[in-house]
Amino acid sequence: MPLIPADDTFAETLAARLPENTLHRAEPRYLEEPRGRWQGSSRWVALPRSTEEAATIVRACNAARVGVVPYGGGTGLVGGQVAQDGAAPLLVSMERMAAVRALYPRENVLIAEAGAVLADVQAAALAENRLFALSLASEGTARIGGLLSTNAGGVNVLRYGNAREQVLGLEAVLPDGTIWHGLKRLRKDNTGYDLRHLLMGAEGTLGLITAAALKLSPVPAVTGTALFTVESPAAALDLLAIARDQLGEGISAFELISRQGLDFLTEKLPDVRQPWPQPPEWCVLVELGLSRGLDPEAALETLFGTALEAGLVSDGLVAQSEQQRAEFWAIRERIPEGNKAIGAISSHDISLPLGLVPEFIERSAPRLAEVGAFRINCFGHLGDGNLHYNVFPLPGRSKEQHVHQREEIKRTVHDLVHEMGGSVSAEHGIGRLKVDDLERYGDPAKLAAMRAIKAALDPNGIMNPGAVLRG
Amino acid sequence: MPLIPADDTFAETLAARLPENTLHRAEPRYLEEPRGRWQGSSRWVALPRSTEEAATIVRACNAARVGVVPYGGGTGLVGGQVAQDGAAPLLVSMERMAAVRALYPRENVLIAEAGAVLADVQAAALAENRLFALSLASEGTARIGGLLSTNAGGVNVLRYGNAREQVLGLEAVLPDGTIWHGLKRLRKDNTGYDLRHLLMGAEGTLGLITAAALKLSPVPAVTGTALFTVESPAAALDLLAIARDQLGEGISAFELISRQGLDFLTEKLPDVRQPWPQPPEWCVLVELGLSRGLDPEAALETLFGTALEAGLVSDGLVAQSEQQRAEFWAIRERIPEGNKAIGAISSHDISLPLGLVPEFIERSAPRLAEVGAFRINCFGHLGDGNLHYNVFPLPGRSKEQHVHQREEIKRTVHDLVHEMGGSVSAEHGIGRLKVDDLERYGDPAKLAAMRAIKAALDPNGIMNPGAVLRG
Repeated sequence: MPLIPADDTFAETLAARLPENTLHRAEPRYLEEPRGRWQGSSRWVALPRSTEEAATIVRACNAARVGVVPYGGGTGLVGGQVAQDGAAPLLVSMERMAAVRALYPRENVLIAEAGAVLADVQAAALAENRLFALSLASEGTARIGGLLSTNAGGVNVLRYGNAREQVLGLEAVLPDGTIWHGLKRLRKDNTGYDLRHLLMGAEGTLGLITAAALKLSPVPAVTGTALFTVESPAAALDLLAIARDQLGEGISAFELISRQGLDFLTEKLPDVRQPWPQPPEWCVLVELGLSRGLDPEAALETLFGTALEAGLVSDGLVAQSEQQRAEFWAIRERIPEGNKAIGAISSHDISLPLGLVPEFIERSAPRLAEVGAFRINCFGHLGDGNLHYNVFPLPGRSKEQHVHQREEIKRTVHDLVHEMGGSVSAEHGIGRLKVDDLERYGDPAKLAAMRAIKAALDPNGIMNPGAVLRG
Repeated sequence: MPLIPADDTFAETLAARLPENTLHRAEPRYLEEPRGRWQGSSRWVALPRSTEEAATIVRACNAARVGVVPYGGGTGLVGGQVAQDGAAPLLVSMERMAAVRALYPRENVLIAEAGAVLADVQAAALAENRLFALSLASEGTARIGGLLSTNAGGVNVLRYGNAREQVLGLEAVLPDGTIWHGLKRLRKDNTGYDLRHLLMGAEGTLGLITAAALKLSPVPAVTGTALFTVESPAAALDLLAIARDQLGEGISAFELISRQGLDFLTEKLPDVRQPWPQPPEWCVLVELGLSRGLDPEAALETLFGTALEAGLVSDGLVAQSEQQRAEFWAIRERIPEGNKAIGAISSHDISLPLGLVPEFIERSAPRLAEVGAFRINCFGHLGDGNLHYNVFPLPGRSKEQHVHQREEIKRTVHDLVHEMGGSVSAEHGIGRLKVDDLERYGDPAKLAAMRAIKAALDPNGIMNPGAVLRG
């Protein structure tokens, strides 16, 4: 049975069951997404103040067969937060549920509501000398509920794991409007199926996360940052292996940067300071976080010495001040901005078995050359095997001139990723952008299981319709 | 519809579809479990040599509505591996699928079949100077499939997480006999619902795990072990907080030991060397694993100094040799043997929010005293908030004399755990032992979701019938 639109009549009925001022007309900002590919069709947005209000909303939508699109910070890159097609769903924005409900420093646990902004959660943890390890470019806007629903990644995954690894418990409204009170602060709890991990990564299609018990970590006593010029991606991997042998879990980030990305910065963001006379073909940004008693600068110098002897690196810069550290990170963090200024034809968030990353980089360029002449900016979280592999027009041409090749480019990249045992959705999720990819590359047994689970938990198909699985 | 027994007729039909010698009469060892509470009813055990054979077996069972009980090392403590009631199911033992299929040292990944014994996986990793961090008392017998299906815990959870955190990908036979090829070696993969985490913790009720891509870690460069005498469980927690401030993730284990456990050792296992003139009321075993450049003995001495000044510890012994380290660990690891020799009336595998552990220990004793006069041995993985809380008769009495109180004891302990936000199944799982507890204490919305998922993925209810959820 098809869904019913969340029209004015439905909104009026729903509003009567909720405190005043809970339902609003959906302003344009709720209907846009960062890449401008979709335009949401929703007319109404609900802004619950409590889990009970959120449950009332979902229950009413389920009874009326009205779609629900959970809305966090709106930073998602795969259209999970905007429904363009089908009956206009109700948006449920979690922005009013933004509290840090509790913090237990001795337990290394923080309870945050789904609408809490990531940077605020990080700051609350830091105020108690604790680290909330999830960190990514959109942390000033992205909210906990969306980050967990999409199992977000970021720059600290190598050391601390993905978003799902930071979660001890969840509270959520299930598709029938019942509340799952799963906000446990336990490190070990084997009482039945792990609903927590099922909701995380389901991108709002199996329920609405309303709060989470988050795991905190000790703040590393000392940190160090370096930029190493490496001969190749293969050399970067060898460097990572040596770094791990020398420093164990002390490596917090290991990011690959390519010449193409640096050239885009030079062209479009000349204020980003690049510390080399000539930009290197490949370099890595290494971040260490170590215990008391260790000297990160000395450790980075030792690492450089070993790598130099092994012929892996040709240059190394160790940040000598907080300012220099910020400058090094700015190079890495502003690459997406440079990319945006150039204008990518097609962007790919892919992962590969770590050992196959260099082979992928080697094999993908000639395959793409068969499609046409492009510039490739390949960069990202090498320590996780996660590359952002973005394809750009040659100088003097615009992405619009290549729109007709977008599908073929994407297919070329994704086919090779799949062939090599990789993932076409590493950290951004499926959303609406990659529903076709999931069908094309997904394991058939897993897809069948996913559809069975969706039908079992959300028989009316109200939760984020059209995302992840075709409605 | 009720299940059909795996009788001789079914076995004959099934045997015809499989290579010779795949089906055997179930020997008694398959029908017993460590605590001797259940006796399995199965007449036949299948021993597949490959994932395809395992799939043929499950497919045939599903078509005939015959129950399947996955069998690993048989070390489970909650009866997950023995079906006593209902139509006799087919046992599927994974012992012939025990290979380490591949090891990727550079990627820190190992692919093991479900029948691989944990100690063998650890050894294979160590041969490449890598650590497979899962470690527990039964590691010489327990097999990977069972360890992952139950999301096993153990002594390294504080640092490395539970079993589920060590898994990158799974291969499994789903209840309809299809094979899910999910053996990815990826650190980031957000392509739909996380079937991996759903099968882990499902204790074989949603499918049969046949292989896993396991995450390896760097071997800590140097290790150190100490026994600290603490004033109380609260002091032990304060000590842990200080240790974390000083050593970050360097703490691999933090185990609480009580006087009662030491007295049992003195009485029943006098060969276990106890290094004190008089056993302390409470002590903790601390294990450090540190990077190069750090001195674990010095670190433990610094920790002791700080804790002494804070009035938390009264005595501290730092292991000075490998032999002494083994002696310290033997105290902790042989406590279950001492318990067994005394004979517990009721044993509890519980967890609590870390900060509430001392309060639980204080409040539980007087509550139990209302039930009767007992001895309590409370010990375990304090760093994870996971206690093994075992109740024994007074000297001169036997557990048999208290059998009639077992339910009341268990109820008393579990009610308090639940009241304080804890879990009545921390690391051993639900199995058949705790099905009632799950119904009593489980969140109703979660239970309803679990039942819906079970019905969706295993509509005939063939997978491990009677475990976790009532059949």
